[in-house]
Amino acid sequence: MARQAGAAVRVVDMGIAADLGELAASGKILSRRIGPGTQNMARGPAMSRDQAVAALEAGIDIARRAASAVDVFGTGDMGIGNTTPSSTIVAALSGAPVAEVTGHGTGIDDEQFARKVGVIEESLRINRPDAKDGLDVLAKVGGFEIGGIAGLILGAASLKRPVVVDGFISTAGALIAHALCPTAGQYMIAAHRSVEKGHRIALKILGKQPLIDLDLRLGEGTGAALAMNFLEAAVRVLTEVATFDEAMVSKAHA
Amino acid sequence: MARQAGAAVRVVDMGIAADLGELAASGKILSRRIGPGTQNMARGPAMSRDQAVAALEAGIDIARRAASAVDVFGTGDMGIGNTTPSSTIVAALSGAPVAEVTGHGTGIDDEQFARKVGVIEESLRINRPDAKDGLDVLAKVGGFEIGGIAGLILGAASLKRPVVVDGFISTAGALIAHALCPTAGQYMIAAHRSVEKGHRIALKILGKQPLIDLDLRLGEGTGAALAMNFLEAAVRVLTEVATFDEAMVSKAHA
Repeated sequence: MARQAGAAVRVVDMGIAADLGELAASGKILSRRIGPGTQNMARGPAMSRDQAVAALEAGIDIARRAASAVDVFGTGDMGIGNTTPSSTIVAALSGAPVAEVTGHGTGIDDEQFARKVGVIEESLRINRPDAKDGLDVLAKVGGFEIGGIAGLILGAASLKRPVVVDGFISTAGALIAHALCPTAGQYMIAAHRSVEKGHRIALKILGKQPLIDLDLRLGEGTGAALAMNFLEAAVRVLTEVATFDEAMVSKAHA
Repeated sequence: MARQAGAAVRVVDMGIAADLGELAASGKILSRRIGPGTQNMARGPAMSRDQAVAALEAGIDIARRAASAVDVFGTGDMGIGNTTPSSTIVAALSGAPVAEVTGHGTGIDDEQFARKVGVIEESLRINRPDAKDGLDVLAKVGGFEIGGIAGLILGAASLKRPVVVDGFISTAGALIAHALCPTAGQYMIAAHRSVEKGHRIALKILGKQPLIDLDLRLGEGTGAALAMNFLEAAVRVLTEVATFDEAMVSKAHA
């Protein structure tokens, strides 16, 4: 899908809790590991404040290194269980009840859903993330990949480049970026409407309407790739299409 | 937008009520004129049954001549006042009340809207189009361009090629095609959701969900061009993406 959109894909390991083995040496994955997975946020902070800063800086650095070759950035994620921190971030920053920002992820039953809500409520109770401090929210209830995405968005915005934000986890990253720097919101374009309930609330905070609503359940930047086609079309309309005046279209007579 | 989608544009004059002058000689427009505009359908049939057949055949012929170079067809229209016959076709084929399938076109006020509804009701009363006979509906309350679009869709379907149907007028053409040959519906893909009220009812008859909902008010095949990006992405997903088995993704353990 990226190939079809003319987009290059960079896969970044922000710190998965496993050994990448041969993949790590293959050069196919950019290693910006902050640590071997985050801590259990239901017991304490997911990461230290320094780690949160490092995750953000990794994303900013990736954006700035790619700047000369990139007109539009896009975000995506791959991770198991990361709708949980994403819902927690939305709850922390919106103040909405946890059950209203929590979805069924890749497919959990009602019992697992109740447990997920419980974990999120416990994480908020134990950590008390400060909604006025995006870094605090990221550190206490975020993830390394969410920090990296937030950093990429901040980096793109600092370069005045638009960034297509795709999916629920990326939107949680966008919320962190927005909390740290509200102006960055002006560079965000929402790609696909997620079926995750919290996505709608997150987009409302950001003031964004997603461009695509195709019942995808993919994430991984797929919606960003699709949306880039629209962006390119929009740019062409702005730059290549004659106005009525230029085309000498006759006006309606009053 | 077509260029961005890698699509070629063919503009066909199905019989506008004006002299094209130099444009006609320029070769930029394919002339398949059925006549110099249709008749006033509020006074009698818009065209003869023979003209309706000729309009359909022109569209079929265009599809078949383009077949060797085209994987996916798209439709669009340009015309003044052609939401009126389109709404009339939807009313005739759906049985829905005229006011429910009539919109505000390119922007008419409430008085003009009431007049539009009146014209459509009068056209239905005078012509009594037979909902079981798509040709009768096209001849009595259609337009040459709607017949051409219906023909293009039938031609594409006969070639087993998908056709992206964009906008309200094209969807009226698709309804005619569907009335003549329900199987043709299987080759139709709905592009952009029109703001015209009748579009929803027309899509319901066809059993289609549009791929795009961007509040465009363009028609002219623009949504078809946008949707072709999605089609290409979908084909790439089907042909280039590894399955979990092929990629040896580990399964969840029960």
